[in-house]
Amino acid sequence: MTNPNEHLLTGIRILDFTRALAGPTCTRMFAEMGAEVIKVESAPNGDLTRAVSKMRADRSLYYVQQNLNKKSLCLDLRSADSMQIIRELVPLCDVVVENFKPGVIDAMGLGFETLKGLREDIILCSISALGQKGPLSAKPGYDYIAQAYSGITSMIGERDQSPCIPMAGIGDVSTGVTAAFSIAAALLHRARTGRGQHLDIGLLDCYYHYHEVNVHQYSASDGEIEPTRNGRHVGYVCPAGIYRGTDGDVMVMAFLHHWADLCAAMDRTDLITAAGWATDAERLTRLDEVIELVETWLQTFGDVGGAIDKLEAHGVPCAPVLTVAETVNHPHFIERGTVRTIHDPIAGEVQIPGMPVKTSDYPADSPYTAPTLGEHNAEVLRDLLGRSDKDVEALAENGVLHSGPT
Amino acid sequence: MTNPNEHLLTGIRILDFTRALAGPTCTRMFAEMGAEVIKVESAPNGDLTRAVSKMRADRSLYYVQQNLNKKSLCLDLRSADSMQIIRELVPLCDVVVENFKPGVIDAMGLGFETLKGLREDIILCSISALGQKGPLSAKPGYDYIAQAYSGITSMIGERDQSPCIPMAGIGDVSTGVTAAFSIAAALLHRARTGRGQHLDIGLLDCYYHYHEVNVHQYSASDGEIEPTRNGRHVGYVCPAGIYRGTDGDVMVMAFLHHWADLCAAMDRTDLITAAGWATDAERLTRLDEVIELVETWLQTFGDVGGAIDKLEAHGVPCAPVLTVAETVNHPHFIERGTVRTIHDPIAGEVQIPGMPVKTSDYPADSPYTAPTLGEHNAEVLRDLLGRSDKDVEALAENGVLHSGPT
Repeated sequence: MTNPNEHLLTGIRILDFTRALAGPTCTRMFAEMGAEVIKVESAPNGDLTRAVSKMRADRSLYYVQQNLNKKSLCLDLRSADSMQIIRELVPLCDVVVENFKPGVIDAMGLGFETLKGLREDIILCSISALGQKGPLSAKPGYDYIAQAYSGITSMIGERDQSPCIPMAGIGDVSTGVTAAFSIAAALLHRARTGRGQHLDIGLLDCYYHYHEVNVHQYSASDGEIEPTRNGRHVGYVCPAGIYRGTDGDVMVMAFLHHWADLCAAMDRTDLITAAGWATDAERLTRLDEVIELVETWLQTFGDVGGAIDKLEAHGVPCAPVLTVAETVNHPHFIERGTVRTIHDPIAGEVQIPGMPVKTSDYPADSPYTAPTLGEHNAEVLRDLLGRSDKDVEALAENGVLHSGPT
Repeated sequence: MTNPNEHLLTGIRILDFTRALAGPTCTRMFAEMGAEVIKVESAPNGDLTRAVSKMRADRSLYYVQQNLNKKSLCLDLRSADSMQIIRELVPLCDVVVENFKPGVIDAMGLGFETLKGLREDIILCSISALGQKGPLSAKPGYDYIAQAYSGITSMIGERDQSPCIPMAGIGDVSTGVTAAFSIAAALLHRARTGRGQHLDIGLLDCYYHYHEVNVHQYSASDGEIEPTRNGRHVGYVCPAGIYRGTDGDVMVMAFLHHWADLCAAMDRTDLITAAGWATDAERLTRLDEVIELVETWLQTFGDVGGAIDKLEAHGVPCAPVLTVAETVNHPHFIERGTVRTIHDPIAGEVQIPGMPVKTSDYPADSPYTAPTLGEHNAEVLRDLLGRSDKDVEALAENGVLHSGPT
């Protein structure tokens, strides 16, 4: 293949108004899988994440990670010339993606009906925290706010304490992936019907979708089962949770028939059928004793690795609870491309997560870079809109086009 | 539209070997968005989740939730007749999805090369915990095991204690969505190139992808920054976390310029610029005092709702930490379809999460039901494979086809 961008989504062009995390994750899935993504950034600062995680050479690694292989077009969005440029770009794009607060894209004069007037079969994907419609939709859109409303936060932490929050962008990133799925589905639908679509993807809905049992158990029990957090141990089988080892924690999933495997590993086969220990239900009633038994045994190993080896030799499903530090040089992570090393022209070599979509025909991760602010101003205006060099220069001089060193 | 299944993915047919949660979520996205999904279940029990969450009339609500609008074909997979049926179905299907342990689909005689022999442009999506390849790939595939390896578990809980685990199927469900995206992308690619694809989607890769900053911060600091859990408060801005109110918890995101809004809400405008309180960095050094200040103020309200009203009146981003019980009748959840009520023919009316993809042309949630075991045996064999009623009866008598009441 001669096109270095050749991948599953080659040939699709996206006009990308997203900033921060959920939206940029969505369009990055497309950009890293071959689509052309033109990221419109607002002058003078561009995506607000260009200001954070500036760990080397004034370059935001946060921006780099979420914006690989995109083109940056930086415009003064208050100017009429900028809006004209955008109106000329829309007909050339298959998809528009935005994650402004609900209502903003309409106020900018780029609502779905307007976009349809510019291109009849346009697909607009609107990403937000709590959705485009509904009584909560106007509320500010942070990941943790959607998580708190969704009931997911209430399922994390110790039962008798306030909940804990995961220190990772779970809601934003997975909502970005859901949005990417919805766009790909809408493109398949367009190919079949010739019609566009407005997609409304909210973090709240994505988070809520994670409740694989909680909602129906509350509902079908008429409120008798009130799902809540349960610390580090699953509440309906046992053992299934996190146990402290000598130099770290171990996830042990030794419920049902795996109890016998764990007993064998611990050289306590007497407990396989012992009264009060034989079933998950019995063990749940004495969870404290189960924890003491397993943790005391884990302390007999010099390290977690030794305990894992022993457990695995007996067929007990288990895992070390790895720190982020322990993942980046792990052979499995490197071989699979779960972690990858990118070479940023400004910040240099750095590791970030790999693309989670692995295909048989294409590499998951190509050596892409992220754009500097407005890096593709001239390219987009010349190649796509047929503007002359002189026009481009004039627009830059007038402040309609803007660019920056990082 | 006369086709009641008309939606974004109508016209696609999937042969679905998945069980449990990640795989069924993937194929359910397709089934609820118009695709025809033929779920192959192994006789005599079918999907193992048919045995859990049986809360009413011996019907598994777990199975119902993850398998709406699928067709159930229940086969004795050890019989040669069953394998012949599957070999006849493959050429009629666009996509095959499976989430067996890596290697099992090959051992069944249905590996990617074999499937390609049956249909040249077949798309096979293989979903697993730790991926199809790599030194860890053979390990047992529970959500929490992938989560423990990914470093995500290490980011949840109190700093000085072992981590906590979320009581929700975050990894399985979001991996199912990632797999659905990868399939939709492969279908777009097939339309452009005529080629099929083998997709390798692992929970580990999806979980790792959630680290929006952790991996690059560890890497770019040469290990100086060691990302870890931080309880209920974000570690780099303040206030941003969970504060205890009178009858529940409140998520307060009052960092940067929102600090002034919070001070105004608390009638403590003296703290906006007070020495030691004015910046996020200063407030982080006295987090305990910030917590005491905010929580003492929250206790002056009769309930969390009153505190939320006051905070919102001052423009402070915030949210109540809702329990699952508080979500199911919440007007926003009902209006958006974040929660939906389904009518199961066996178990009756029950609430489950709505589909997170909302479109302008189609309802997100149609009144679909989940199949009883083998419900569509005859339909699939007659309509798709042209078998006679007599043939179907004989196969049922010989135990090749199997069915059950729920």
